Amino acid sequence: MKGTDPGGDFRRLAVIGVGLIGGSFALAARQRGLVGSVVACARSPETLAVALDRGIADEVTHDPAEAVAEADLVYVAAPVRATETLFSAMAPALRPEALVTDAGSTKAAVVALADRYLAQRCVFVGGHPMAGSDLAGPAAARADLFQHKTYILTPTADTPVAALARMRDIVTAIDGVAVLAEPEQHDRLVAATSHLPHLVAAALCGALGDLAARTGDIRPFTGAGLRDATRIAKGPPEVWRDILLDNRDNLKTALRLFSDEILHYIEAMEAQDAEGLEGLLDKARGFRRSLDP
Amino acid sequence: MKGTDPGGDFRRLAVIGVGLIGGSFALAARQRGLVGSVVACARSPETLAVALDRGIADEVTHDPAEAVAEADLVYVAAPVRATETLFSAMAPALRPEALVTDAGSTKAAVVALADRYLAQRCVFVGGHPMAGSDLAGPAAARADLFQHKTYILTPTADTPVAALARMRDIVTAIDGVAVLAEPEQHDRLVAATSHLPHLVAAALCGALGDLAARTGDIRPFTGAGLRDATRIAKGPPEVWRDILLDNRDNLKTALRLFSDEILHYIEAMEAQDAEGLEGLLDKARGFRRSLDP
Repeated sequence: MKGTDPGGDFRRLAVIGVGLIGGSFALAARQRGLVGSVVACARSPETLAVALDRGIADEVTHDPAEAVAEADLVYVAAPVRATETLFSAMAPALRPEALVTDAGSTKAAVVALADRYLAQRCVFVGGHPMAGSDLAGPAAARADLFQHKTYILTPTADTPVAALARMRDIVTAIDGVAVLAEPEQHDRLVAATSHLPHLVAAALCGALGDLAARTGDIRPFTGAGLRDATRIAKGPPEVWRDILLDNRDNLKTALRLFSDEILHYIEAMEAQDAEGLEGLLDKARGFRRSLDP
Repeated sequence: MKGTDPGGDFRRLAVIGVGLIGGSFALAARQRGLVGSVVACARSPETLAVALDRGIADEVTHDPAEAVAEADLVYVAAPVRATETLFSAMAPALRPEALVTDAGSTKAAVVALADRYLAQRCVFVGGHPMAGSDLAGPAAARADLFQHKTYILTPTADTPVAALARMRDIVTAIDGVAVLAEPEQHDRLVAATSHLPHLVAAALCGALGDLAARTGDIRPFTGAGLRDATRIAKGPPEVWRDILLDNRDNLKTALRLFSDEILHYIEAMEAQDAEGLEGLLDKARGFRRSLDP
């Protein structure tokens, strides 16, 4: 960001939750010269050891307040249901000039918590990098994780224009593609585009696991299509547990759209309606093709 | 197969339906010296032109009977609901020493049709290479398509041991991994491991397509996870239409397993049962990990 940064670089980055996303952000920010020093915070000593060992952070701590005390950029990347605990622990120690952002996959609840705990002290801009993976932890962190990936920012009516501009610059600096959305709009859309696919892939794996438990090894009858279709089900259960709980109302709405479409397929199969079935498959292919670059 | 082939190579291969699978089989068989000449049969003149142009076949024809007349290996790779038409057209022209196989994704109906139309004339061994792709047509054919891929063979009680051995040798020669199954067992298992995932991915794309039609472009809110999870929905509609129709009873059974698992997730979300939800996600991850090499 050197040379193009309207607000200057950051002296010290605090990463609260230094897993795949938090660790990758620190690596990317260091590589681009965005930040001076980095302090990482996590509960697990092993996680912190990896963060030090891989050069993700210069210092580590288990205490969120200690982590943010001298930071002018704070990046919260923890399971979304840990947000309230973390925000309330951090809040008293935050510097007034600090820019705080997060990487949670749901935004309405997080933004409301930021209003409650952080707004009096500093500036918060919610974020959601769509750069998740089936890998987890700082061992899997990569400086190029955000490259060409959508990075949603969810400012509110109260967000200062300058803070949003700084966040956009940060996203651009790490090679992400910034997209703006209102927090509620974000949660509605990703319920359909991200959380529903995850639920479906996980349920598919669960059902096949049950079948295998009953009938014996089914792996010889599986192929690359199934592996691709269910790769996301390898994602961290504690992260996805929180997402599914936090966004359950939007997810149930999305699930109804999906169930209705499944019913159309069942009706066409029962009626042996070859033309109708081909029409449904053709519509699906059309949408899927539209996702390709 | 030279040097290890117990039954000798084949003078002439007839490929009936020269798309991705049929075209790839011809390329692989030629590259390994398994076959002398190749004749390809398809309805579309464009398909046949590509098959000639790419060196998949030496000769082409629209007539299945003409294609098989001098062949000692016949490879049928067409949408499964075209099987009866093709078998009945081929049957009178088949040579008694010909080995006939197919590449259909469902097997019980195909094997029954082979009994009816082909068994009096020559030997048939059903096959299902799990090497499908989101690509289609002879333009996408590759000699290494079957490499390290499961290739299911479905002999019956009447299949001569020597014919099954020859088919296994062919699969090995093209670097596939031969797996044996009874036709009905095959159809039950792939309903769960292949047809259900396809239906689910297609329904997901259909539902998202409907959502996009109502709410505007949702692509900025999609990521690599969704693209991977739905890649199979780019498969050819006319092939999948036939599979879903032909295997609909087994597919409905598999769909019930999946729906039950989805219900477990919904119940856990409604009860805000974090532990239960994590348990479901953990089970899913465990099964998915078991699919990795």
